[in-house]
Amino acid sequence: MATLQDLGVAAAINIISAFIFLLVFAFLKLQPANARVYYPKWYLKGVRQGSSRGDERGSLLRFVNLNYKSYLHFLDWMRDALRMPEGELIAHAGLDSVVYLRIYLLGLKVFVPLMLLGFLVLVPVNVTDSNIQTGKIFGTDIDKISLTNIREKSPRLWAHVVMTYVFTAWTCFMLFTEYKTVARMRFQFLAAEARRPDQFTVLVRQVPLDPDEPISTHIDHFFRVNHPDYYLCNQVIYNANKLAKLVKKREGLQNWLDYYQLQFQRKNTERPMTKTGLWGLWGQKVDAIQYYTDGINQISKEATVERERVLNDDSSKLPVAFVSFRSRWGAAVCAQTQQTRDPTVWLTEWAPEPRDVYWRNLSVPYLQLTMRKLFITGAVFLLIFFYIIPVTFVQSLANLEGIEKKLTFLRPIIEAKFIKSFLQGFLPGLALKLFLHFLPKLLMFMSKIEGHLALSQLEVSTSAKYYYFMVVNVFFASVIAGAAFEQLKTFFQQSPSQIPVILAGSIPQKATFFITYIMVDGWASIAADIMRIKPLIVYHLKNMFLVKTDKDRENAMSPGSAGFDTVFPQLELYFLLGTVYSIITPFILPFIIVYLAFAYVVYRHQVINVYDPEYESAAAFWPHIHNRIIVSLLVEQITLFGVFAGKRAAASTPLLIGLPIMTIVFHYYCKNRFEPAFRKYPLEEAMSKDIVDRATHPNWNIKTYLQNSYMHPVFKDSEEEMD
Amino acid sequence: MATLQDLGVAAAINIISAFIFLLVFAFLKLQPANARVYYPKWYLKGVRQGSSRGDERGSLLRFVNLNYKSYLHFLDWMRDALRMPEGELIAHAGLDSVVYLRIYLLGLKVFVPLMLLGFLVLVPVNVTDSNIQTGKIFGTDIDKISLTNIREKSPRLWAHVVMTYVFTAWTCFMLFTEYKTVARMRFQFLAAEARRPDQFTVLVRQVPLDPDEPISTHIDHFFRVNHPDYYLCNQVIYNANKLAKLVKKREGLQNWLDYYQLQFQRKNTERPMTKTGLWGLWGQKVDAIQYYTDGINQISKEATVERERVLNDDSSKLPVAFVSFRSRWGAAVCAQTQQTRDPTVWLTEWAPEPRDVYWRNLSVPYLQLTMRKLFITGAVFLLIFFYIIPVTFVQSLANLEGIEKKLTFLRPIIEAKFIKSFLQGFLPGLALKLFLHFLPKLLMFMSKIEGHLALSQLEVSTSAKYYYFMVVNVFFASVIAGAAFEQLKTFFQQSPSQIPVILAGSIPQKATFFITYIMVDGWASIAADIMRIKPLIVYHLKNMFLVKTDKDRENAMSPGSAGFDTVFPQLELYFLLGTVYSIITPFILPFIIVYLAFAYVVYRHQVINVYDPEYESAAAFWPHIHNRIIVSLLVEQITLFGVFAGKRAAASTPLLIGLPIMTIVFHYYCKNRFEPAFRKYPLEEAMSKDIVDRATHPNWNIKTYLQNSYMHPVFKDSEEEMD
Repeated sequence: MATLQDLGVAAAINIISAFIFLLVFAFLKLQPANARVYYPKWYLKGVRQGSSRGDERGSLLRFVNLNYKSYLHFLDWMRDALRMPEGELIAHAGLDSVVYLRIYLLGLKVFVPLMLLGFLVLVPVNVTDSNIQTGKIFGTDIDKISLTNIREKSPRLWAHVVMTYVFTAWTCFMLFTEYKTVARMRFQFLAAEARRPDQFTVLVRQVPLDPDEPISTHIDHFFRVNHPDYYLCNQVIYNANKLAKLVKKREGLQNWLDYYQLQFQRKNTERPMTKTGLWGLWGQKVDAIQYYTDGINQISKEATVERERVLNDDSSKLPVAFVSFRSRWGAAVCAQTQQTRDPTVWLTEWAPEPRDVYWRNLSVPYLQLTMRKLFITGAVFLLIFFYIIPVTFVQSLANLEGIEKKLTFLRPIIEAKFIKSFLQGFLPGLALKLFLHFLPKLLMFMSKIEGHLALSQLEVSTSAKYYYFMVVNVFFASVIAGAAFEQLKTFFQQSPSQIPVILAGSIPQKATFFITYIMVDGWASIAADIMRIKPLIVYHLKNMFLVKTDKDRENAMSPGSAGFDTVFPQLELYFLLGTVYSIITPFILPFIIVYLAFAYVVYRHQVINVYDPEYESAAAFWPHIHNRIIVSLLVEQITLFGVFAGKRAAASTPLLIGLPIMTIVFHYYCKNRFEPAFRKYPLEEAMSKDIVDRATHPNWNIKTYLQNSYMHPVFKDSEEEMD
Repeated sequence: MATLQDLGVAAAINIISAFIFLLVFAFLKLQPANARVYYPKWYLKGVRQGSSRGDERGSLLRFVNLNYKSYLHFLDWMRDALRMPEGELIAHAGLDSVVYLRIYLLGLKVFVPLMLLGFLVLVPVNVTDSNIQTGKIFGTDIDKISLTNIREKSPRLWAHVVMTYVFTAWTCFMLFTEYKTVARMRFQFLAAEARRPDQFTVLVRQVPLDPDEPISTHIDHFFRVNHPDYYLCNQVIYNANKLAKLVKKREGLQNWLDYYQLQFQRKNTERPMTKTGLWGLWGQKVDAIQYYTDGINQISKEATVERERVLNDDSSKLPVAFVSFRSRWGAAVCAQTQQTRDPTVWLTEWAPEPRDVYWRNLSVPYLQLTMRKLFITGAVFLLIFFYIIPVTFVQSLANLEGIEKKLTFLRPIIEAKFIKSFLQGFLPGLALKLFLHFLPKLLMFMSKIEGHLALSQLEVSTSAKYYYFMVVNVFFASVIAGAAFEQLKTFFQQSPSQIPVILAGSIPQKATFFITYIMVDGWASIAADIMRIKPLIVYHLKNMFLVKTDKDRENAMSPGSAGFDTVFPQLELYFLLGTVYSIITPFILPFIIVYLAFAYVVYRHQVINVYDPEYESAAAFWPHIHNRIIVSLLVEQITLFGVFAGKRAAASTPLLIGLPIMTIVFHYYCKNRFEPAFRKYPLEEAMSKDIVDRATHPNWNIKTYLQNSYMHPVFKDSEEEMD
């Protein structure tokens, strides 16, 4: 167990390393050559322009910033990041990003008062008692200022009961106002938005096939009859997954062609050669430019044939369509109602915005969805509780002796003393590190199999899976100490009344561990995040080997997005830690607060200057965030039950029963009050937007506007190419 | 434990008593004087007419049936009951009644094949093993033909595993086809129905108050803007609860007046006198006819004043309205969509049909509903698990010594030996009997407090509460043996993995108890039901003291309804017993089948000849029935886990895990596939009915038709009176 001093040292190390990261970042971002890495958003907006490569005009200044003054203000980006007002930020980066940043603010709003109260009320109460000093139990400095130091049956516990109610009430109050604000922001955002195809469009699934008429006509007839005054047109969806693959393959070849052409252009002496085998490593040697040009032509031909086939073959039409209406009111009605007796056909839901559609999954048969969901749920369950088994297996394979035996030619290298000891320390962890690195991608892959139709849904679904993984394998695994599947056994074989006791037994002892975790995983990782090491390297590599035109350079930027699928779970885990420890060990709160404040500044900077979100869901993810904070409250309350029972506080323990009831009632209240705002589009809103639209653009031709709005991007690409 | 012989005797007693009840019924129903008790439905339909009291025409034949031939066919009613085809029955008694009868048929369809398979496969397998014969465990004759007789680790258990899958699959298949049929019947029924106000009407709750305009105008404006093409009119609801009370009080006085006028008419000598105090037992003596006439006049005046106040005072208008639309399509759209940003105002839902509205609860503020629901949930929980405490308390008060001390004048009576022993045996049970008798009324009262707006919802909600009560206090209380709150303790302190073991330990032993229960509670109670003792007595009493005109006699009939609130839970309990024991002790099945078949005939007779349903919900209750049978399957499967684990069948037990997964998947499939049919009105259906309507009645004036369709019955009554 760590003393306060140990923690202080750890904090100092982490703060210093974070500071070094920030210095490096400040230096890197001031170099003009890196501008497209650190300010891509402004290039995409067209505010910044021009090439940052100086080969045409040749000047050192285009690469390196020699103005020493600018280095003096190396922390100004923080001030700049905080300066942009929220309204402007919504216009600049969209509502999703702004609401995402508000989660950090919410954390501060919740935890700062909790910390103040904790240090003003609970710490003095704890520190003046003497459970540890009297030697009844063993404890560290941190335990002395936490609930552990309260003696059994002490009347001081009343302070904790009162504070628990105050904390819960404050958290709920903050959650409530935040939910209300986000719901209001969402409606304002939707109301203020420009005209967009998805406002008029409904996604219809499970169109029943009619042997007598083509699918498009069938849809036409159905909606003409059942929505006579509002129906406008429909866009049938083609199964273009094969075509998309071809186009993607062509893009890959095009990259190689560009690379060799650039090489040839620069050296100007001999034509570059390549090998026809895998990754250009094996096989016959051929002229590279010729080889890739041929390949591209070949695939282009295939793509053209496939494109014709898809567009003309009836069997490639999916029983899915985007159906558009004359007014937003008509679309809102269709999306919210049931069309026929059989609730498994003619299913209507709001269409995601065109960018947000995940086209591949439109071809998933609807009736498979339940089975897919079930299968993935089972797989995620296994992954969460038993992932450690394959990892351990790989670790056991990856020992040095095994590798030496199989790959004998490596023996001289491995036997070198220094390398051997390094590998022996490094290899066992490698499998786990690799697994954890690829975990979000694996979970995203699983979510894709589940069959979600929009990228926004995919990210939310992945974030849920990742959250469960972290709660079980970071939180409970540290608390209960043991592999996840052993926890499962513990929980299943204990009576429900024992669970709070188990939690109470170990949670207070793990406070120092989690404080260290917050510093290493939280503080340091944010500081590393802002440096954008990977995009920096990738951009410069691309710039070196692939970029020929300014448009190529535009494409070489990879602004990325906030990555809600991994960012939300991490944040939610910190909320869980903060809530669970707020009463037991308030000393953890300042560390979380530092994390939240620091992350808020850093990610606000990234949102303003870097990220380019792939879609805009108007904060549709908020209910998930809210629900998980509610769960954190419940975990806290169950733990406190156990702690109080352990302190034999017979008088005060029953009072705690009010907390989960209060929390659950609050949850349902919020659900009823606010969740519909994120799921439905009220008719009044639709109607008022329609009325304004009709008044301002009486002659607007909606039909041409919507004609090709929902076209598979692969067709758009090939159309552009043909132009 | 009972032997087969004991059970035979019990069965014989129950069959004989049921037969006697049927004989008495056959005799009673043939007497013309009882016709309005046993055939009220036909009087209400106008098929039977005329008075059955002979005082004007004076003939014994009007009272007693002297035709001996008719007594010979005393069981013909069974044939007659089964004769009416289903289609006709729907037209005669409504869809609710027909689907209710189908539950019994469903039970037969499920359990008859299960019984055959059980007796052909499982019983031979069980009876040829020798767990009991070898004296390893103690067991009765019934245990010898049940799973108990299988030895540990016996390979014979494979037969039971296979049969469990077969039984579950068969039950699910039957549930599926039944759900499908009922959903289809519901749609056909709705499509075939005549025009009804509720097809065009939506109930709007939480109308926000506007200080500038009256509520009706406010509603008008809102819907004119947001449903411009379909909105027709609205009917604001008045808080007429006080008026309704006055009207009810007047009816009570009218009854007394009728009674005294009849007395005076018959005796013709002296005017009857009454006392002004409670129940006419205390107080001043006055002329009865004068007294009640004055009372009625007084209350009529009050009612008129109240009526004026309600209709003219704005504060008696509730923020609730029935809003009608020009077409069914418009109403279906409004009912299924969200109207405004704030999901707690302008709430729309389908209006119940006018008869089905529970007017009192329309005045319950919407925001109280959650609190009410929570409060009632808590109360029901306490009632289910702790009802035995107050009952025991009353029992302890009601001992003879206590009564003697307080009511000393009763001492001589109580001390008489015979009476004393009778009372000592009788009193302790009395409190419990009274409690159980009033339980459904208490639960209905609780459901009313919950704030449901329709009688159909009230009955479904009450039936759920009653079902939980029976499952805990009949099923689990018998199985685990102990008061309900002790079970709670058992379940809470055991680990989840122990629950199947506990169930498995006692369920097989309780088979004989439940067989007796089925005979006493099931067989005998149905036979008693058909005699309609209470309505018979009440009718003749009313006939004697209150009936003056034929219209009075019409009112004196109390056909009643099937009483879904108490009938469903009983049926569902039998489904639970049948499913749970189908594998363990198939011997229970014949008893359930006899019950179901007998009940089917009896209640079909009652539905045809007696019941007059208060409302028609088009089988809206079906999902509840379906869900509870699913729960029965799950209880069965959990129990089997324990039984197999107890038999140490290590190879076959894991195979059982597939059952609950299969069942839950099936449940969700059915929920998605069929439940919307009971909750929403598809636009296609609405549109096609609209189109037919427009074609057949192009000039129909919908506005006058809907004008006063949703008027509080109390206004209708007083209007009739004024005519």
